[in-house]
Amino acid sequence: MPRLLPGLNYPVLCGRERLAPLGELAPGGGICHFHEEDSTAMYRNFSIVPKIIFGRGSFNQLDDVLSSRRANSDSYIVFVMDDVFAGKPLEKRIPLHGKDFLLPVNVDDEPKTSYIDKLVAQIKAYAPQLPAGIIGIGGGAAMDIAKAVSLLLTNPGSSADYQGWDLITKPAIYHAAVPTLAGTGAEISRTCILTGPEKKLGINSDYTLFDQILFDPELLAGVPKDQWFYTGMDCYIHDVESLNGKFINAFSMAYGEKSQELCRQVFLEDHADAADRLMMASYFGGMSIAYSQVGACHALSYGLSYVLGIHHGIGCCIAFDYLDDFYPTGVAEFRKMMTRHGIQLPRNLTKNMDQQSLDKMVKTALNLDPLWANCLGPDWKNIMTPEKTLALYKRM
Amino acid sequence: MPRLLPGLNYPVLCGRERLAPLGELAPGGGICHFHEEDSTAMYRNFSIVPKIIFGRGSFNQLDDVLSSRRANSDSYIVFVMDDVFAGKPLEKRIPLHGKDFLLPVNVDDEPKTSYIDKLVAQIKAYAPQLPAGIIGIGGGAAMDIAKAVSLLLTNPGSSADYQGWDLITKPAIYHAAVPTLAGTGAEISRTCILTGPEKKLGINSDYTLFDQILFDPELLAGVPKDQWFYTGMDCYIHDVESLNGKFINAFSMAYGEKSQELCRQVFLEDHADAADRLMMASYFGGMSIAYSQVGACHALSYGLSYVLGIHHGIGCCIAFDYLDDFYPTGVAEFRKMMTRHGIQLPRNLTKNMDQQSLDKMVKTALNLDPLWANCLGPDWKNIMTPEKTLALYKRM
Repeated sequence: MPRLLPGLNYPVLCGRERLAPLGELAPGGGICHFHEEDSTAMYRNFSIVPKIIFGRGSFNQLDDVLSSRRANSDSYIVFVMDDVFAGKPLEKRIPLHGKDFLLPVNVDDEPKTSYIDKLVAQIKAYAPQLPAGIIGIGGGAAMDIAKAVSLLLTNPGSSADYQGWDLITKPAIYHAAVPTLAGTGAEISRTCILTGPEKKLGINSDYTLFDQILFDPELLAGVPKDQWFYTGMDCYIHDVESLNGKFINAFSMAYGEKSQELCRQVFLEDHADAADRLMMASYFGGMSIAYSQVGACHALSYGLSYVLGIHHGIGCCIAFDYLDDFYPTGVAEFRKMMTRHGIQLPRNLTKNMDQQSLDKMVKTALNLDPLWANCLGPDWKNIMTPEKTLALYKRM
Repeated sequence: MPRLLPGLNYPVLCGRERLAPLGELAPGGGICHFHEEDSTAMYRNFSIVPKIIFGRGSFNQLDDVLSSRRANSDSYIVFVMDDVFAGKPLEKRIPLHGKDFLLPVNVDDEPKTSYIDKLVAQIKAYAPQLPAGIIGIGGGAAMDIAKAVSLLLTNPGSSADYQGWDLITKPAIYHAAVPTLAGTGAEISRTCILTGPEKKLGINSDYTLFDQILFDPELLAGVPKDQWFYTGMDCYIHDVESLNGKFINAFSMAYGEKSQELCRQVFLEDHADAADRLMMASYFGGMSIAYSQVGACHALSYGLSYVLGIHHGIGCCIAFDYLDDFYPTGVAEFRKMMTRHGIQLPRNLTKNMDQQSLDKMVKTALNLDPLWANCLGPDWKNIMTPEKTLALYKRM
């Protein structure tokens, strides 16, 4: 049983990464569970993206950041760009040189392992040598594609082979994140979530982590309001789940509380630098998960995504609106945010679903042990039964 | 002149590290100034310690963390330990193996370059090959010694040769921090402050940064109350100076505000996990400086240290108590904290000083351009005259 600290109302989190990862992980990437083998507290030795630039207009420094990567005239950089920017001003600002490869990617669907494999083959066909860097420009999906491609260029086989924990054995190609959406925490997480032939599951490893983040809040301008809101709520919900979970410690609490406060400033107040604050909220939200875990909402959202193909951010919002029993304060505040921004959630999504699909959804959600353990404690299976889960889904 | 953002009340910070570092740096390590060469905003690409463990009892994992560093039977680790722990339980818990070298260091005085050179010679005499790692166990001074030693084992000459910015050319020996005091931010800064023959100035470089931090809040137990308070106030004052400075941005604000809030919880409230919160406050305080800078108090404290040999934390407290005009709210709250913990500051320190020493103190403080520019803006020299500085010192 985990060691309990006198005077503290939380159990110590175990973090030995190779001990029994119990289920799928949230985008934040924490691998969390109780260490039952002995009475010693063990904590995860977690990795952080080691270089950060933050500032309005800092996109102009991308060329400078990459210059040290260009060893010789054959060196080339691959810019993995969300194809929403094709023909837009941002595309023209990408600092292309010599043999650089601009690779627009489509994220209408969340990234599939087959798509990653195709992109990797495309890069390998492009040049005899590996690229000097992979730069992900876009939201969570584009950043996750950049991460997966950088891993699969150096690790043989299909990306589906690496869905899980610490299956990657070779360092990735240098890879950097340029987020154009804020909230997922993908810029700081050690995972990249992929939909494979058998499961929706991330490639979780220290090698997945970016080598560099460039935060330019000006890049958030122009995002459609719905997408801005849903992606931001991914972060807000991270925070609620992390702060209300059993795994919380002072590290995750400091990041989670500040992230939540920044979300309130962005979604319930007016600030000239709201975009700057949202980028910080996203980063802090991701850091909060490092020693904690998400919970019921992310688990249920994974079911919605896997079976109905619903994108992660909106899926989280759809599920969260029915979780008053789990997160009463958080859900009430979330509804205020929705009202303030005139957001209408889709309803009755499961109305015409057959029993088999509903069962698959329930199974997907309940497979995520660490998320439920964080939300409800080690006895969660006695509380969150398949019947209760099905009833929740039927209301959505 | 720097680019100004419409709607924001702060100038954009310039961060090109090699452009005109104007003066000495604070422990947080930010190199900050306005970029006057063109109108483009430039931001520092700053480095972060890439691996962190946080948790009560995590000191037990140090052996595990270091195991991958021990390549063969000749590999050895140097444990730079504050000699206050000599013969204490913590010393016995240090995971010594084979040829490991336990190196107690004395920090009655703040670290001198001559002391660093002596320690480096001692390690070189100990074994024909370089150590596999340097572990700093102690407060800011012990951690700074560990950083300096790890740099000077691979860079030739005296540590005094490297006092400044980016003078280090070779990567350091792997080095890790185990703080036993919280507040300096030394665990996360890219500098190690040394008193040299000519100046008190840090070795500022990305190589200075630790490779690993192990935060075990249990290690804060047993620190004398005065030292706990003064070191914690180093952090609180960081935060006040960063948040009230001209260089502040959303990144530094998020870290600084949360750090300040955690300081309030530690010094004005009662929490069972106060040590955990103080460690987070210190880390966040250091991160806040990354894109910001300290200010008047740290500048004045450097003068007190250089001329009177006063330690950094208490020096900050002595100076801060006379800075109502600069930081009215911060100073008022600081006094509440002092009252709550029964802290009596030393007074009349400059009463019997000769004019030459006073002038040296004034010169030391006013030499720190970036700190004053952050505090008072680019025209600071018209505001903070030598006469005004002298008058402040004379009250201390």
